[in-house]
Amino acid sequence: MLRIVVAPDSFKGSLSAPDVCRALGNGLLRVWPNADIRVRPMADGGEGTLDAVLTAVGDSGKRRQVFVHGAGGAVVDARYGILDGAGGAIAVIEIAQVVGITDPSGMATDVGERTSRGVGEIIVALLGQGVRRFMVGLGGSSTNDGGAGLLAALGVALRDGGGREVAPGPDGLAALTHVDAAALDPRLAASTFTIMSDVNNPLCGEQGATAIFGAQKGVIPTQQRPYDEAIARFAQRAETAIGRRAATLPGAGAAGGLGFALQLLGGTFHSGAEVVADLIGLDAALVDADWAITGEGRSDTQTLLRKAPFVVAEIARARAVPVSLISGAVDPAALTALGAHFAGCFGLPNGPATLDHCIANASILLADRAEQLARLLAAARWQGG
Amino acid sequence: MLRIVVAPDSFKGSLSAPDVCRALGNGLLRVWPNADIRVRPMADGGEGTLDAVLTAVGDSGKRRQVFVHGAGGAVVDARYGILDGAGGAIAVIEIAQVVGITDPSGMATDVGERTSRGVGEIIVALLGQGVRRFMVGLGGSSTNDGGAGLLAALGVALRDGGGREVAPGPDGLAALTHVDAAALDPRLAASTFTIMSDVNNPLCGEQGATAIFGAQKGVIPTQQRPYDEAIARFAQRAETAIGRRAATLPGAGAAGGLGFALQLLGGTFHSGAEVVADLIGLDAALVDADWAITGEGRSDTQTLLRKAPFVVAEIARARAVPVSLISGAVDPAALTALGAHFAGCFGLPNGPATLDHCIANASILLADRAEQLARLLAAARWQGG
Repeated sequence: MLRIVVAPDSFKGSLSAPDVCRALGNGLLRVWPNADIRVRPMADGGEGTLDAVLTAVGDSGKRRQVFVHGAGGAVVDARYGILDGAGGAIAVIEIAQVVGITDPSGMATDVGERTSRGVGEIIVALLGQGVRRFMVGLGGSSTNDGGAGLLAALGVALRDGGGREVAPGPDGLAALTHVDAAALDPRLAASTFTIMSDVNNPLCGEQGATAIFGAQKGVIPTQQRPYDEAIARFAQRAETAIGRRAATLPGAGAAGGLGFALQLLGGTFHSGAEVVADLIGLDAALVDADWAITGEGRSDTQTLLRKAPFVVAEIARARAVPVSLISGAVDPAALTALGAHFAGCFGLPNGPATLDHCIANASILLADRAEQLARLLAAARWQGG
Repeated sequence: MLRIVVAPDSFKGSLSAPDVCRALGNGLLRVWPNADIRVRPMADGGEGTLDAVLTAVGDSGKRRQVFVHGAGGAVVDARYGILDGAGGAIAVIEIAQVVGITDPSGMATDVGERTSRGVGEIIVALLGQGVRRFMVGLGGSSTNDGGAGLLAALGVALRDGGGREVAPGPDGLAALTHVDAAALDPRLAASTFTIMSDVNNPLCGEQGATAIFGAQKGVIPTQQRPYDEAIARFAQRAETAIGRRAATLPGAGAAGGLGFALQLLGGTFHSGAEVVADLIGLDAALVDADWAITGEGRSDTQTLLRKAPFVVAEIARARAVPVSLISGAVDPAALTALGAHFAGCFGLPNGPATLDHCIANASILLADRAEQLARLLAAARWQGG
């Protein structure tokens, strides 16, 4: 019996990773009705991470939700997960569930007032339940507050020259002069944070969160410098108050600075895709597999920066399982570089097609592509190579 | 050493079959620099047939040319081929070289005045050289004269009620009342014509040459009926004069009725792709091959009507060689039907792309597609299927 691992990331803007798995599986079953298709939807720490992990762990994971403040202050019903872990419960938090850039109520608020405090509120709630291990997927945030909201929710006081509390958004931080960590939740000292992200940017400066990711969140050019300076001042004072440095660490600029705040709390950065692969048991699924398929909405040279398909390829290679890439599109300019890592890279359309057509017909195209590649392999009693 | 047969048709409007072979070969060599790539450009009896055959037979074929009248009366420098045959020389004539729809001087003449006499002139010249075996590739003609021009060139007299010769185009045939075959070249009796075509239409009527193929040659709707009637009258008289019936035979409507005239001379119809495959030694190339690739500009359900890729697939199947289809585009609606005949069907683009882009970049896309499929096979030590 053929054993095939299907482990794609989501096709953002088109299909979730489980949807991609279903489509690929359908195509494969047309050729091999009895194949053992091992479905492992992947994620990179951003949107879809929670679903991927909970789907993969089955009964040993629980889906929960909690009301917290969204980026704009409105209450959001944030989903998270609790996994059984050898050393106690592990919380899986996807910050896109709290301060997501796809949340209309958050985006309706000016970026200067958006904060990450909802993420801190989830952590507080979980600390109260005894949870001490956190896996936090960064990615898809609408905030650009340097993680000040998260720290404020955890007890850090942010004050202006008159001793008044300032709002933790970048507008409020402009008036900040003092950071006091005396009331920081003491349970954090016994907590670990595994940060899932593939962003390497520092918090501030030319490669910082505001400069690189601000515009897509609504930061206009004239705000860029004052925001960056306000966040830098906040960060410097927060580092002093907590006694750790984090602003220049790689990834501090992830999720509008949540990467900074979580590292300031001792969190460690990991490739989101690697952590997800670990949590969903990808390696075990690949044992004795004959073939693996991964993919994403669009593959280009960025894919090589440890995006989900690259991580799948690496783990599969260690198990000597050929892994093919089936993505919505594959950048022709990246094909040579990608080709070295995959047993073939394939985009979806079978002829001239618009982007809209590809998105609207992604399930059909995916199933067809998987079927046709399966036909090639089924026909090949291949001795060469 | 890997042995791979590359036997595509041309990508009409984009690349010749040898160009397609080159591109596919380039892609394969990136993965297997030492592969034995057996290049067999295919054709279907239409444009490209002569080149495909002469390329394949090498020194045992000779490229010739002769000045004859084109469809519009201007002199054209028509190419043909002479092959060594066990029973004497074989002429390979591609009617697109004489009365091709891509010849601007022919197309500048009204379709009512275009004739196929140039094709007859080549035959007369070859008869004079002792040639008695003719392979005639129909396809891509600009004429719609029922083959009257060809017959006239071979000695058949076409006359009106007053005994005056009429022009063999459909305008002239309107006045035709008598056909006299007394002066038909006697050497034709000892000649054989192998007609290469994949058109099954009869000469006249609703499925006839004028009704189905007239419009693309410039027949306007009001001419359709009078032309069809004039050709039917000519055909009936020609059949009587020569003593054989051909107008209702499948393929009589090929190439504006050249299929009729050549069958009236005793010619036999064959799938162009099958004859070409035979002439180029495709079967021999497939012996011991590990993989074959075929393709065409656009594959759809018509491909199953014995187009070149289908014929390649059939011959390869008999040799148990898996054959994949790489075409410029593959009609999604035909994928299931095509999939049963090929070891995978693949279009060219790797993402959203326009037709113009695909045509302009066909060589690059072909090489990339072949490379990526080769990578899949190279990685697969495949036990399944």
